[in-house]
Order: sequence, then C-alpha cells, then structure tokens
Amino acid sequence: MTETLFAQRGSKAEIEGGASFQPKFDADGLIVCVVTDATDGTVLMVGYMNAEALARTIETGEAWFWSRSRKGFWKKGETSGQILAVVDILTDCDQDALVLKVNVAGNGATCHVGYRSCFYRHVVKGNAGESPRLSPIGEDRVYDPAEVYGHNHDH
Amino acid sequence: MTETLFAQRGSKAEIEGGASFQPKFDADGLIVCVVTDATDGTVLMVGYMNAEALARTIETGEAWFWSRSRKGFWKKGETSGQILAVVDILTDCDQDALVLKVNVAGNGATCHVGYRSCFYRHVVKGNAGESPRLSPIGEDRVYDPAEVYGHNHDH
Repeated sequence: MTETLFAQRGSKAEIEGGASFQPKFDADGLIVCVVTDATDGTVLMVGYMNAEALARTIETGEAWFWSRSRKGFWKKGETSGQILAVVDILTDCDQDALVLKVNVAGNGATCHVGYRSCFYRHVVKGNAGESPRLSPIGEDRVYDPAEVYGHNHDH
Repeated sequence: MTETLFAQRGSKAEIEGGASFQPKFDADGLIVCVVTDATDGTVLMVGYMNAEALARTIETGEAWFWSRSRKGFWKKGETSGQILAVVDILTDCDQDALVLKVNVAGNGATCHVGYRSCFYRHVVKGNAGESPRLSPIGEDRVYDPAEVYGHNHDH
C-alpha cells in the first residue's frame, strides 16, 4: 500500500535534500506525527499514521491517525468534535517523522483527559534514590470528560 | 532494566492522573521524544530514548538518545558541540511520549544537515494524480556540514 501512495525511498542525498516526499514507515507501517498548535506552536499530542491515514490527511486537510491500541483508522475529533484542521505539514531530514500544525475545532481540547494538550505534566527529578515524579504544568482542563461522557472516552 | 530505573505501569487512572512517572517503552524498549526550543517552542527534532538514555537525561540535564540506526547510546552534540541542555521534560496522558524543552549549545544547529531544526521542509499536496512534494520552509542553514566535516556527519 505504501508503494502506491508515496514515492519509493531514494538515496540519502535525495531524502535529505530532494523535493520528493519519501516518508519512511516503520516495521509496523507507521510514521510518528507531532501535532502542534498552528498559532503558538504548543505541542498538543503525538500520534501515528500509516500510509493511508497520511494520504487521507494530506487529501482532506483534516488529521487522520492509526490507533495502535485499537488497530484501526482514527479520525481525530470524529466523535468528540475536536477535529484537527491541518495548516501545515513538515517532515524531517530523514523523512521518518512529521509535524502537523493544526487548528483544533470544537472545544479545543486535544487530549481525551480534557486538557488542551496531552502534555499537561512535567517530569520532575526525584530526590536521591527516588524515582522521577510528575507535576501538573498548571493549565486547567478545558472540560471534564466524566461530565460529558460519564467516563474518560478513549480519544 | 526498565523496571529498575522507573516505576512499573499502574492503572489507567494512575497513568493519566497520578504523580508517578511510569513511562511506557515500546516493544524495542524505546520511547519517542519531541525536542523543542525552550525559547520559542520550535520543534527541533524527534529522537528515541531507552530507559537508560532517559535516566541519563534526567540525571545530567543533557539529552541522551538511543540511535536506532547505530544501535547505541547517542549523546546529542558529543562530537558536534550541539549539546541539548534540558530546561523541562513533559510527558503525555498515557506516558508513552516525551517533550524535551532545550537550549541548543554550540552553533545551535540541531540537524546534522546544518539547519536549526530537522523540520526544514513542508509537505505540499501534489497536483491531481501526483505524489506530494517537499518545499523548503525558507530558513537558511546555520552551517554547511560538508565544509566542516567534508561530508554530512551522522548526527
């Protein structure tokens, strides 16, 4: 499937410097995708796309992913309303990662826990001999999924 | 090794809402890590850490990765000087991804191709029936690796 949707991988020089998009999918057929807010650059979430999800994203301008846990296509926001409207897609030097710059529709909470960003906690070094701990970055939740869904919905 | 360095994975509620850092490493023992500029939030690169690289990063405040291609530890900047000084580490709802906010030392070019960011190209939708193409985002390279190394050095 990959072959029919995107160009074959070329030389290192072509991959790093050429104008041909030759995304590298891993052994599971996935490419990692960093989603950032198009307005202020905040990292909102990290997701994975297979070739078909990436093709749909480019074609429609709305973000599609492949859910590794549910093993199925996942149009972000399809049930929750938090559709990701893609403003720009970037790829990196070896074309095995993507950045999606998006505007978030609906209530603007990308994270299924109710925060704007999935990255709502710092990792803090523990005291000597202790494991690292987490502390909130201090942003309030946009909404409480338990109030809307009766439980944390699964993305 | 993972077990000795970080807490075991707990319940979904604990992972999403608790204060215990319980990073999830994939089947290869790796966690994906998005590196952003601590000053302006630009996504600079995406790397992978195993438990030991993550522990070293937290302990030393400088970013260590696991190179999937070379199958070895990789202290970013060790040879090039572009050490990543870690200002903050964030993790996401299911604790299977990290954001590292960093200041880049040396000449400030995180990418081995010579750009400040590895994400120096847009993915542009092709015309009907054509594959997507790449176009430069328009940032100049910080330096030309060929002039410094005689070739593109490998990170």
